Amino acid sequence: MRNLKITLTAIALTLAAGSTAQAEEGMWTFDNFPIARANATLGTNIDQAWLDRVRLSSVKYGGCSAGIVSTEGLVMTNNHCVATCVANLSTQAVNYAQTGFAPRNREDELKCPGGTAEILTDISDVTERMRAAGAGLDGRDFTRARDAEAGRIESEACGGVAGKRCQVVTLYRGGQFKLYTYKTYSDVRLAWAPEDRAATFGGDLDNFSFPRFAIDAAFIRLYENGAPAATPTHFKWNADKPVEGTPVFVSGSPGATQRLLTQDQLFTIRDVVLPMDQLLASELRGRLLRFSAESEENAFIAMDPIVSLENTYKRGLGRMRALVDPAFMATRAANEADFRRRVAANAELTARVGDPWRELAAVQPIQRETYAAYALLEGAAGVGTTPVAGGSQLFLWARTLVRGAQERDKPSAERLPEFADSRLATVQSGLFAERPVHPALDQVRMEWWLSKTREWLTVDDPRVRALLGRESPEALSARLTTGTKLGDTAVRKALWEGGIEAIRASDDPMIRFALAMQDDSRAVRSDWEARVQAPTDRASERLASARFAAYGDSVYPDATGTLRLTYGKIEGTDVPGQRFGAFTTFDGLWDRATGSVPFDVAPKLLAAKARIDGDTVLNMAVSSDTIGGSSGSPVVNAAGEILGANFDSTVLTQRNAYGYDVNVNRSVIVTTGAVTTALRDVYGMARLVDELAVR
Amino acid sequence: MRNLKITLTAIALTLAAGSTAQAEEGMWTFDNFPIARANATLGTNIDQAWLDRVRLSSVKYGGCSAGIVSTEGLVMTNNHCVATCVANLSTQAVNYAQTGFAPRNREDELKCPGGTAEILTDISDVTERMRAAGAGLDGRDFTRARDAEAGRIESEACGGVAGKRCQVVTLYRGGQFKLYTYKTYSDVRLAWAPEDRAATFGGDLDNFSFPRFAIDAAFIRLYENGAPAATPTHFKWNADKPVEGTPVFVSGSPGATQRLLTQDQLFTIRDVVLPMDQLLASELRGRLLRFSAESEENAFIAMDPIVSLENTYKRGLGRMRALVDPAFMATRAANEADFRRRVAANAELTARVGDPWRELAAVQPIQRETYAAYALLEGAAGVGTTPVAGGSQLFLWARTLVRGAQERDKPSAERLPEFADSRLATVQSGLFAERPVHPALDQVRMEWWLSKTREWLTVDDPRVRALLGRESPEALSARLTTGTKLGDTAVRKALWEGGIEAIRASDDPMIRFALAMQDDSRAVRSDWEARVQAPTDRASERLASARFAAYGDSVYPDATGTLRLTYGKIEGTDVPGQRFGAFTTFDGLWDRATGSVPFDVAPKLLAAKARIDGDTVLNMAVSSDTIGGSSGSPVVNAAGEILGANFDSTVLTQRNAYGYDVNVNRSVIVTTGAVTTALRDVYGMARLVDELAVR
Repeated sequence: MRNLKITLTAIALTLAAGSTAQAEEGMWTFDNFPIARANATLGTNIDQAWLDRVRLSSVKYGGCSAGIVSTEGLVMTNNHCVATCVANLSTQAVNYAQTGFAPRNREDELKCPGGTAEILTDISDVTERMRAAGAGLDGRDFTRARDAEAGRIESEACGGVAGKRCQVVTLYRGGQFKLYTYKTYSDVRLAWAPEDRAATFGGDLDNFSFPRFAIDAAFIRLYENGAPAATPTHFKWNADKPVEGTPVFVSGSPGATQRLLTQDQLFTIRDVVLPMDQLLASELRGRLLRFSAESEENAFIAMDPIVSLENTYKRGLGRMRALVDPAFMATRAANEADFRRRVAANAELTARVGDPWRELAAVQPIQRETYAAYALLEGAAGVGTTPVAGGSQLFLWARTLVRGAQERDKPSAERLPEFADSRLATVQSGLFAERPVHPALDQVRMEWWLSKTREWLTVDDPRVRALLGRESPEALSARLTTGTKLGDTAVRKALWEGGIEAIRASDDPMIRFALAMQDDSRAVRSDWEARVQAPTDRASERLASARFAAYGDSVYPDATGTLRLTYGKIEGTDVPGQRFGAFTTFDGLWDRATGSVPFDVAPKLLAAKARIDGDTVLNMAVSSDTIGGSSGSPVVNAAGEILGANFDSTVLTQRNAYGYDVNVNRSVIVTTGAVTTALRDVYGMARLVDELAVR
Repeated sequence: MRNLKITLTAIALTLAAGSTAQAEEGMWTFDNFPIARANATLGTNIDQAWLDRVRLSSVKYGGCSAGIVSTEGLVMTNNHCVATCVANLSTQAVNYAQTGFAPRNREDELKCPGGTAEILTDISDVTERMRAAGAGLDGRDFTRARDAEAGRIESEACGGVAGKRCQVVTLYRGGQFKLYTYKTYSDVRLAWAPEDRAATFGGDLDNFSFPRFAIDAAFIRLYENGAPAATPTHFKWNADKPVEGTPVFVSGSPGATQRLLTQDQLFTIRDVVLPMDQLLASELRGRLLRFSAESEENAFIAMDPIVSLENTYKRGLGRMRALVDPAFMATRAANEADFRRRVAANAELTARVGDPWRELAAVQPIQRETYAAYALLEGAAGVGTTPVAGGSQLFLWARTLVRGAQERDKPSAERLPEFADSRLATVQSGLFAERPVHPALDQVRMEWWLSKTREWLTVDDPRVRALLGRESPEALSARLTTGTKLGDTAVRKALWEGGIEAIRASDDPMIRFALAMQDDSRAVRSDWEARVQAPTDRASERLASARFAAYGDSVYPDATGTLRLTYGKIEGTDVPGQRFGAFTTFDGLWDRATGSVPFDVAPKLLAAKARIDGDTVLNMAVSSDTIGGSSGSPVVNAAGEILGANFDSTVLTQRNAYGYDVNVNRSVIVTTGAVTTALRDVYGMARLVDELAVR
């Protein structure tokens, strides 16, 4: 009977959502979570108080998610979420990635440079204000008016209050605007990280797959006023052996999905955005791999960038495969057809929303034409993955300094939105973080970027001529990265505080370079905002409105890097190309190990083999709806206890950027049991085990 | 009036060919050239005797085309067609790529290792024999019976005769089979090559573009019995200033087009073949660029491979763009719909051919599934561009030795077709050529290939496990490339002559590696032949038959690397993204030069600036229908005089793999005038100018 009921519910919801909606689909906001539906599907009994506790125990850390697990600010996330912190705290001689980081005392926990964490404390609706701000405008006026209004709302709600951040979040691609208020922590310390090889066993080859054997977990600690933060609301640590079929909830901040895009918009991603991003990433990967092989030092500094690049690349490959899968795309096409039929059948609705599909189709040729320049000269944040200047930290600092100086000369409402008053604290915290700099690595990045920019925009493009002058990509990138002084925090501070005069007077080559390209990069951004972003936003808003009318609020918004709750069960899968049970164990790890990288067991972990119960569950698969950014998300049972941290999903799951499939979608979780074992039996962290109050 | 007539003819032909057929479209075989149509379009008056002279003056050299230009075996082709010969003849100390190769006397012309040239002397129809051989068979039986019959036909016609080669050519994807007979020259000498930088001015950035400023020309000489071959039939050298609008014919061996593929087949290329090939090539490019930057020696040995890789990659990019161009693909879809309508309207025809579109559609999921393994373990020749073993010369020799030994133990008809008796001479000539070997380069290639094979087939694929054992890609490729003795021609000769016993007894690591992977690589090939190739061939044959019935023989076959004649005019274009006149001059070169690589003028060329008439036409654009392999093709006027050598086409032109567009398609030609200037004014080659009998 229960199975039947679930099936009927699922069918009803499938029809209601007009997508491949499954019982376990949806990255729901905490203020619109389908409590009844989830309880019906899972046989649980959660309520609003439960939701509030889970929300207040959930932490956003950098681009990752995390969960509070003690009353004293201890937070579990993934090891790969602290990899940059570990790299920043390490030297070639004292390399915590190699040894793990296991501070004997709490006082030995080290501050992560630039690390900030935040907890979502409040959500309120600001849709009407945002709508009004853009009414009657189009093109760049529309975009800028909206951006300015968001900045005003944020400043009014949060302005100047330390430890508090406000953010206007666009949901349903403009269907709603919400003001999210966060309690922020700018002092975040590393409390424990395993040996990197214990967290990345199998490396890129096992990434995005299951079965999996990785202790991809780490702890940070929130500090306030120089002391561990008091966190009475937290997840209770449950290290019991997990049970297949257990209902679970995953609370985290998934980065971005494109499920509400029209088919035409998806074709642009398939045909233009992903191919360019992937081809370019692939060449950088080749350059970095060879660079890394050239010396021990290069291997040390390139490790984190290579892992990160390979992760992005493999995710992109999974997405490319989804977009050329005839069956998957046919389902999406059928969903769109259903939606259009419903709108067409409703004359009042049609009159109100017009034909947003046609408007969005008309934007695509422009987007196809301009994407390369926007990505290469400006970075195309939120659209693609090709980074401006190849992601050179030195360049990015220079750009922030130059733009920051230029923008702060204007009233907040007229600035580029990332420099609005309400956001300056975040900008400064990134800019002033003490981070090691590796000019050789930045040089590889910039060489690659300059040569690819010249290749894709063509050598005769005036913007390319301006960028390179008569220098080669190699000579220019060498001159900039070896000549700049921006690696010195004091230099950055002085330039920031000196404002536009200091920038104009600077003879730092990277500053001069970043300054010289401002006209071109601002123009390309401005063109994109006017001809792509604004018409897309305007049409998407009406599309969202039509979707609410056609399907009610059983629709969830695309992921936007903000807190969401998703639910499912602990379970394996049995579809072609992906057949596995729900669990792996430490015995499975010993079996898979060959001794060769990346299938070598980390030394301390291997040394502890005799102390470890081989039956302990190491990783598990769950059917909840996650995506990049969900990394580190606490996996919680119906009692609100934490069972593990989400750290990956399978490669077939990458299609969930465009649509969820309960048969395919599997997230990969490192269990609390495995973490307890690692802390106690491998890394001598009994003090943390005590703090977790493990039974 | 004349314009009107041309337009009407064009429309009639467009309808007749059921494709985007234009007046100047078509890579025609010499035995089915539309003389009347070409004369009507161009206002020329060529005849069969003209065709015969052009054919007998046309030379195939390696993967390139060329034209005889004197009575003493002198042949003009592109510099990039002799680049491998130049590299093989050079050392880091005496580097002809850097200095140019300008032998003072004919006796100083040097033999190109492994270089062979051939002239097409006869064409005859063998369709009936080939049809009969495959009748009633399917799967691998079908493929093997056909291959065996082709080998028999070739042996019967040519067997054992030195200086003669026979080849059964499949036209119209199985619509016709022709026996091509060639006179072959296995002694080919380098007679002149310019400085490489004179031929490649603008490098990869200007590649596939116009305006262009490259002296991409070189001369080879055919030798017979140790003396220059007597070649009474040759093109007359015409170095006059070319005139816009002049009708021209291009005679050469275009490599491969896919114009007769169904839409479903094209989607597989768009979705699977090109993305994988391009992504992999992009990573290899990154590795090779960094490798090249590591030392002078590496730069020397990686130069030719990088140029070649970048050329393939950029061509692939042009093709990717064509396949995602909505307008271009809509035209192709309309053509297919027209074709299907015509077949459906003819009951007799439908009954005879069945539904080959549906059969081909059914093959696609298998092709999509198996392409990666076929490409990585076997090389997928003729399907994609990803080379087995990364194109390592040492590995390819090992594979030829191992397979050659295994196959020669069988009767000719039962062998892999490339080892049929009729083809052994070609195999041996490649195998025994004295070529320099660069193990460090081969190591980069194999590292890349092994790691990509592991990535794409997954680490748990038994074939991958067998390939790598417990070694890393890096360790294995180092062991194989530094341990093998196959760089020594005598070692290769001994292994070839020793047959299977010698192979089995060999402890050469590369031989053992190639031997060990035979079962897996043969299995993947065999699977492809049975489940992809055979059903594709069988359906394509009926599709060809339907096409002849629907459109008559106004249809030309897809390019197959065999001799074709195409025609057009000297002209620029004026379409979006491609606006240029027909000519560039030496003055244009001086203007474009910045002094920085790749826009630096080659030293000797620059030194000769004062002696060169700046108005001399350097390169020109023509509208004839060409593609890769057409490189070096003689461009001939209606009087049979040579005006230049085809060396490139624009990036938009790369869509011509799938369909010709007269407005877009432009080939890039180095003029005889520019070559004369280079010989006389730059490289001191008056003796060749005399031989060409320049007016």
